[in-house]
Amino acid sequence: MTLKISKLSNGLTVVSDPMPGLESVAVGIWVNTGSRNEDAKSMGISHMLEHMAFKGTARRSARAIAEEIEAVGGVLNAYTGREQTAFHARILKEDVPLALDMIGDILTNPAFEQTELERERQVVLQELGQARDTPDDIVFDHLQAAIFKDLPLGWSILGEETSVNAFDSGMLKSYMASNYRLEGMTLIASGAVDHANILALAEEKCAGLNRGAVPNCAPAHYVGGDYRNPEDLEQAHVTYAFPGLSNRDPDYFVAQIYATALGGGTSSRLFQEAREKRGLCYSIYAFSNGFQDCGFLGIYAGTGQSEAAEISAVIAGEMEAIAGNLTDAEVARARAQLKVSLLMGMERPGTRTEQIAGQLFALGKVQTAAEIVAQLDAIDAGAVKRYAARMMQAGRPSIAAVGPIEKLESHTAFARRFGHSLADAAE
Amino acid sequence: MTLKISKLSNGLTVVSDPMPGLESVAVGIWVNTGSRNEDAKSMGISHMLEHMAFKGTARRSARAIAEEIEAVGGVLNAYTGREQTAFHARILKEDVPLALDMIGDILTNPAFEQTELERERQVVLQELGQARDTPDDIVFDHLQAAIFKDLPLGWSILGEETSVNAFDSGMLKSYMASNYRLEGMTLIASGAVDHANILALAEEKCAGLNRGAVPNCAPAHYVGGDYRNPEDLEQAHVTYAFPGLSNRDPDYFVAQIYATALGGGTSSRLFQEAREKRGLCYSIYAFSNGFQDCGFLGIYAGTGQSEAAEISAVIAGEMEAIAGNLTDAEVARARAQLKVSLLMGMERPGTRTEQIAGQLFALGKVQTAAEIVAQLDAIDAGAVKRYAARMMQAGRPSIAAVGPIEKLESHTAFARRFGHSLADAAE
Repeated sequence: MTLKISKLSNGLTVVSDPMPGLESVAVGIWVNTGSRNEDAKSMGISHMLEHMAFKGTARRSARAIAEEIEAVGGVLNAYTGREQTAFHARILKEDVPLALDMIGDILTNPAFEQTELERERQVVLQELGQARDTPDDIVFDHLQAAIFKDLPLGWSILGEETSVNAFDSGMLKSYMASNYRLEGMTLIASGAVDHANILALAEEKCAGLNRGAVPNCAPAHYVGGDYRNPEDLEQAHVTYAFPGLSNRDPDYFVAQIYATALGGGTSSRLFQEAREKRGLCYSIYAFSNGFQDCGFLGIYAGTGQSEAAEISAVIAGEMEAIAGNLTDAEVARARAQLKVSLLMGMERPGTRTEQIAGQLFALGKVQTAAEIVAQLDAIDAGAVKRYAARMMQAGRPSIAAVGPIEKLESHTAFARRFGHSLADAAE
Repeated sequence: MTLKISKLSNGLTVVSDPMPGLESVAVGIWVNTGSRNEDAKSMGISHMLEHMAFKGTARRSARAIAEEIEAVGGVLNAYTGREQTAFHARILKEDVPLALDMIGDILTNPAFEQTELERERQVVLQELGQARDTPDDIVFDHLQAAIFKDLPLGWSILGEETSVNAFDSGMLKSYMASNYRLEGMTLIASGAVDHANILALAEEKCAGLNRGAVPNCAPAHYVGGDYRNPEDLEQAHVTYAFPGLSNRDPDYFVAQIYATALGGGTSSRLFQEAREKRGLCYSIYAFSNGFQDCGFLGIYAGTGQSEAAEISAVIAGEMEAIAGNLTDAEVARARAQLKVSLLMGMERPGTRTEQIAGQLFALGKVQTAAEIVAQLDAIDAGAVKRYAARMMQAGRPSIAAVGPIEKLESHTAFARRFGHSLADAAE
């Protein structure tokens, strides 16, 4: 039982990924379009389309969609990313035909009725409000905007009130016609699945989708900036970013090991220094976030009003230090964390489908666990230190912060710690 | 390969729960003590103890604890509930001895050093701030307080600044000596495990723990109340509660089916009416929350400033209606959702350990999937409607709300919709 990939004559890629011992299946269609494929007028339309897909088709009302999947105890859901949009289900193995019939239906025959759109617009505006009420969520939208400035990759996935209020069903249909194309779609099923069965269902249920490729989105690159919103909150939610690597970069796993050693667990430099030694934070972590042509290294710290005065220096200090004295033991620990997290993720069907979708999008192929482990094993402390040093010089840092941040170091002063002068750039 | 339960001569219960095809293990010790076992002075001490357990033992520094588990790529973590506290790990099967050595060590020999306590106090205060910055999280603390008033079950698990600032290592030691007792502990391992191996490790690694039973906590019961904090947020985060069932109640699954049909999925009454028909909410759901001697039916709605005027009437209307006209199809759907969610949860080691811990605590035994399915199958619409009608009469509703809630219906008016007069009770 191994993973199989087929490409149908209509352009759709189909992946079956059998897991022994399971009775359930995670299945979905990943579409290679997302918020970075939008323009200023259509900001948020990928996400609105994702919502509206569930609001009725030629064959099913919105209520019928909800009732049919839940009648078999399944969950049908979707999410919109910056580069991909996914429509997926978790069901028992006998209900895979139903799940694919429904996903095929909502992608082939969405009704996009105006009255449903008016209601769903209100729901999306509520979702926007919910996101803004969650500072350790919304601060990442601000960070993304600080990094990518006016590029679509810097925009909020949810859109803005103005754009959301302007959508009509014609815009949804037009965006779908151009961006939901079989060459840019992948159907993935992990769990109790059989390739021939999944292939036959894919042929049948996706026959009516549009052929052809998704238009390329405009290239993006790290710019870097500063966003501060002093708000009356209990905590200062502070994020930092540095130029990082795309998901296609050969050093992808070097960046993953770096982020893990810097702030990926309780033994990481940032956790030990900021939380364990200084008690400045409850939550602090680092991550490496890649897109098809660019990426960034990000850090989050939730800290107090007075602690916010210290946090930038602590982070800069650890970044400076790790580039010079990262140990083999730390690299071994980060490698072990990434390996075990990979292996445990592979025990969960939903996680597997997401990993497969991400790899196919970035690399055009699926890597086995053994291939990933081999790449991780080949990375030594020297490679990570070189990456760490290079990254700090690759461009000016970005900062986004909300809450009681009056004492937070200025962007200029933080950038100067890394040798970057902001004098030449308008803030 | 089936689940096995043994009780050691020292009082510890040991459960091994083998899952075919896995390479990893979820293992932990559940201690039958939590925030409801506290008094006013020790409010939050269960949670502080959970933090301090990781801050060093006679054999390991805090840093060594973090480094040892992450060196094998494992995750060692803990959480504090109102009735139980858990210390658990996710590791590969070969690292089970290490994980149990570490969990045994931190529960047997915690150092509770004063300097570590001073630092960790700051971390917990940061955690408190983080919770307060998350309105759809903190509103449930306010709901719990509104329901249980001055009873310990109504207090915040994190404690309050005053209590957290007053903890010293003597208080931690004394609370641990009385409440961390082998008769009130259960070691559970799910995944790639073998009973004889787990038993031998349990004997060895828990030999130094205190024998005897955890003192009973004071009984609790639903009281009911109202909490409102008008705050400058984007959304009104509104929660409601009604008297519910304990985890030991024979009608436990009736309440689960009721909550699922009312607000458990996208086909539920509340989702269809409040989100799909009226566009009032992005997020709305119902749940049944049980403790050892009491429980409540809860509802959450995230809504807008003007929509907050409507939400109470919509919820009361759906609750009234469902008690009269719940259909067999809705019960069948709720039953299917609960069954499939149960079966999928059983494919995940971490979820299995938590379910086993909860069942042993509530019932003193572990139910098989077949036993739970049989109970669900025995419930018809009549039973759920009788429960729904009874629940609305069992006591006055509770409300907790934060955000732009000026237009939210008063507690008195909402209670009157269910025939409860609040005139006799001080608010």
